[in-house]
Amino acid sequence: MELIENLNWRYAVKRMTGKEVPEEKVNAILEAARLSASSAGLQPYKIIVVKDEATKKLLQPAAFNQPQITEASHLLVFAAYESLTAQHVEDFINLQIAVKKIPAESLEVFKNTLLNNYVTRADETNFQWAAKQAYIALGTALIAAANEQVDATPMEGFNPAAFDEILGLKELGLKSVALMVLGYRDEANDFLAKAPKVRRDMKDFVVNF
Amino acid sequence: MELIENLNWRYAVKRMTGKEVPEEKVNAILEAARLSASSAGLQPYKIIVVKDEATKKLLQPAAFNQPQITEASHLLVFAAYESLTAQHVEDFINLQIAVKKIPAESLEVFKNTLLNNYVTRADETNFQWAAKQAYIALGTALIAAANEQVDATPMEGFNPAAFDEILGLKELGLKSVALMVLGYRDEANDFLAKAPKVRRDMKDFVVNF
Repeated sequence: MELIENLNWRYAVKRMTGKEVPEEKVNAILEAARLSASSAGLQPYKIIVVKDEATKKLLQPAAFNQPQITEASHLLVFAAYESLTAQHVEDFINLQIAVKKIPAESLEVFKNTLLNNYVTRADETNFQWAAKQAYIALGTALIAAANEQVDATPMEGFNPAAFDEILGLKELGLKSVALMVLGYRDEANDFLAKAPKVRRDMKDFVVNF
Repeated sequence: MELIENLNWRYAVKRMTGKEVPEEKVNAILEAARLSASSAGLQPYKIIVVKDEATKKLLQPAAFNQPQITEASHLLVFAAYESLTAQHVEDFINLQIAVKKIPAESLEVFKNTLLNNYVTRADETNFQWAAKQAYIALGTALIAAANEQVDATPMEGFNPAAFDEILGLKELGLKSVALMVLGYRDEANDFLAKAPKVRRDMKDFVVNF
């Protein structure tokens, strides 16, 4: 796995060609995100995949009219649970029981921990916690995209409330937290295409004990 | 790159053998984290690498005495900027100028955007934003560890204030947000070692437009 090469190859592409990313590559990226780690394994978020051109056009003004929204073939909206409910925990525990083929009683302590220590927290606390879990998947999806030689740009420059409204996310109990567009870099028109990657030196990034 | 295999191989290891992870593997994991994407490229966090046994022992009670804190050979503490300062932006812009070999004037607009739109936000807003960027690196580091056949467990079950105090993070303008231990799974003693991975089906994870 050429992970370091992939991380160096990728950058936040600002202009894309409009060429379509094949579905099998999109699916590989989504599968990597689905396998990501999350707190207690709860996966408190979903990914909204917008391929429909009209919907992308509708969303674009709510993302400062950035061109990559429509130049990308797929727009992924990472959307976190706006609250964590007892039903979420119930569904999660039932899934554990089904996949692991274990008796419900063996998960009673775990379930009560989730109900008492997670569900009882303020909605805003759980939303921020859920958003962070989504960012683990975001990091994973960026690597998966590079691995497929697909360009991916993570984006925070958008109006989450407008996105939620257009996509009907409130009805799904979700709030958008980050975007990622999938497509192909337009090297001729992207001022960042030839720019070297800028990162702090390791000595300014790590503290050793 | 066997990304999907690596994601399936890894799990949140609860018991480790104590065997030491070689420095070159730790460095490869840190390098991947350092290359991670972040909002505007600001990398608003650092990674504290705790190898010292005495320090790990000191930290363990502040992480519910979880055994992997000392059974791991390296404990990574992801620590986000507690606030984003004009100095952070100044240093960041200077690094851009040095690496890209471009005139300062060409970054004036970008710099003012960062000063006006990021630095002016409330500290708590910037801290939550910084924490999310650290979680992108956390996701990256998990993949990098699996790629090195090193076990890595992300952990939120700890007392951040106590960690900050022991590690002197306040003096560095940092607050701990997540842990990751690096080591090797103890299959005989880890109840999770043989458990299947549980993830929601794609149909419950993705919404299509």
